[in-house]
Amino acid sequence: LYSGDVKKCTLIPGDGIGPEISAAVQQIFAAANVPIEWETVDVTPVRGPDGKFGIPQAAIDSVNRNKIGLKGPLMTPVGKGHRSLNLALRKEFNLYANVRPCRSLEGYKTLYDDVDVVTIRENTEGEYSGIEHEIVDGVVQSIKLITEDASMRVAEFAFQYAIENNRKKVTAVHKANIMRMSDGLFLRCCREMAKKYPDVKFEEKYLDTVCLNMVQDPSLYDVLVMPNLYGDILSDMCAGLVGGLGLTPSGNIGLNGALFESVHGTAPDIAGQDKANPTALLLSAVMMLKYMQLAPYANVIEKACFETIKEAKYLTGDLGGKAKCSEFTNEICDKISKSS
Amino acid sequence: LYSGDVKKCTLIPGDGIGPEISAAVQQIFAAANVPIEWETVDVTPVRGPDGKFGIPQAAIDSVNRNKIGLKGPLMTPVGKGHRSLNLALRKEFNLYANVRPCRSLEGYKTLYDDVDVVTIRENTEGEYSGIEHEIVDGVVQSIKLITEDASMRVAEFAFQYAIENNRKKVTAVHKANIMRMSDGLFLRCCREMAKKYPDVKFEEKYLDTVCLNMVQDPSLYDVLVMPNLYGDILSDMCAGLVGGLGLTPSGNIGLNGALFESVHGTAPDIAGQDKANPTALLLSAVMMLKYMQLAPYANVIEKACFETIKEAKYLTGDLGGKAKCSEFTNEICDKISKSS
Ligand SMILES: CC(C)[C@H](C(=O)O)[C@@H](O)C(=O)O
Ligand SMILES: CC(C)[C@H](C(=O)O)[C@@H](O)C(=O)O
Repeated sequence: LYSGDVKKCTLIPGDGIGPEISAAVQQIFAAANVPIEWETVDVTPVRGPDGKFGIPQAAIDSVNRNKIGLKGPLMTPVGKGHRSLNLALRKEFNLYANVRPCRSLEGYKTLYDDVDVVTIRENTEGEYSGIEHEIVDGVVQSIKLITEDASMRVAEFAFQYAIENNRKKVTAVHKANIMRMSDGLFLRCCREMAKKYPDVKFEEKYLDTVCLNMVQDPSLYDVLVMPNLYGDILSDMCAGLVGGLGLTPSGNIGLNGALFESVHGTAPDIAGQDKANPTALLLSAVMMLKYMQLAPYANVIEKACFETIKEAKYLTGDLGGKAKCSEFTNEICDKISKSS
Repeated sequence: LYSGDVKKCTLIPGDGIGPEISAAVQQIFAAANVPIEWETVDVTPVRGPDGKFGIPQAAIDSVNRNKIGLKGPLMTPVGKGHRSLNLALRKEFNLYANVRPCRSLEGYKTLYDDVDVVTIRENTEGEYSGIEHEIVDGVVQSIKLITEDASMRVAEFAFQYAIENNRKKVTAVHKANIMRMSDGLFLRCCREMAKKYPDVKFEEKYLDTVCLNMVQDPSLYDVLVMPNLYGDILSDMCAGLVGGLGLTPSGNIGLNGALFESVHGTAPDIAGQDKANPTALLLSAVMMLKYMQLAPYANVIEKACFETIKEAKYLTGDLGGKAKCSEFTNEICDKISKSS
């Protein structure tokens, strides 16, 4: 299949069910002979010389060296002043585009059976700027920051993604009727980029309209690109259409690296009990392989995973089955072995 | 039924299909002998002495006098500097709470059949502050403004609404994990208000989580209260679950008056052709009657409307039928006459 070097890849197993589902992915990658060597790191915040908590330097170095990582769910430490670690990582590595494909899974029934959309979310600014002030007592402002640079690069990413993945249309999602300057700038960047990709259809839609139409007929959409918060909302909504965050992958792409992650929670209630569903992390790992130009491995794994879900013999509790995480994982490994 | 005075009510027919659906509502109100006298006003912006466009004084005076209004869809005039007229009205009369009930209609099939939620949206500030700046070339900020006063009064409105309408739960929808100060303030106000209403269950949920869960199981929610933009999104999404904006009513409530409106578009493509569906405006008018303590009339009209939809003999094109607006309207009037 592959004659290049074995590539190193940072693994952040995460909290709660993170370690079990990470182990499942490692087992499946081994079964498929994926030419990857894992470098496992811990990102539990440590107190730095300045007294502030931050991601350990070793973890940062690992990602910077390998330029590629896979990450399980992380708990946000409780207590004032702790920002989400998930966000800290996106920021640290300037992972400017968040990509979340949502496809109906054959064999896993929801109300919808024709969902096939990809949300592409600006991942560094917007409502997530972190800039907030109390003007006077009881009057607070939060700043939504939109820049031409970030908007252009995520718009470019969306069109490039559409081309590379044989997608027909990009929809820019906005509220430029309300936030005329900020969403207006974002929209203008999308329009400008659209001109460079005449083979991809381009349309502009209000966020509220997309939400309404998406629940009525998801086949109206293909690739969607939008500011940070809108992506947070729409990607979760789309995940809901196909079965939830336990089934949908996510990738954060930057100029100097990429981090793929499952975006579900740490599920502390079932952690350590061999009950968790590793699908979201596995499909994120599959996205990662495609990104690394290791598509043949990605395809074999993806196929085995989809078939296992479709056959419904070994489903975990969240999917209505009774299988353990390890049984689901073993079944996928079996299928991979048989297919080679 | 009613022995009080005839009340005056401002009617803003609106643009596009606005006049036809307004006429339909007037006809139905007449059939039900609703003790209301309409005062029809035009809100097409006029140029004031300062050279700026604004709502005509006569329209403003009418609403201020009557303290109650019904409004069809309005076009936003094209051209730079025109803000949405819908928003201008909300602002002019300080209509601080936007209420949108979404219920599955018996006889009108969608993917969901158990939707019964009410979104209550802060209607005056948040992301709709209109404050935006270009800091330097290509860097824009929009300000989301959250105040304790506005948050408290909309939170109070939500709990009061729950009590008066026999609702069991209020969910505060937020992203205080990201906008810690602004959504944090909003959330604290909801928590504080919740303490005064021990009989209403209170819960807090992230906006993304609500979007995900809503499309999977709308019965998880009851009354939802949230900042302006989140309400814009969620109310449209919920409308999508039950059939769209053509079927869902909306009320904007202020201290000194209230304006009820259909929130669908002006549908210029079918305007003037007797094809429009008046249901959303009619159900908004029904909400208005309940607000005016004229519930008996409201109930008669609502019942006739729901039955007409359920029987499906006279449905307009948007609902898959072939009836004209006038046929649908006549049928509702017939049912009202027969029921009295
Ligand atoms: C965990 C949270 C901070 C995060 C977000 O708001 O972006 C999550 O919802 C996501 O979508 O990755
Ligand atoms: C027309 C538009 C300005 C408005 C909004 O964004 O609030 C609409 O979507 C609504 O929900 O009433």
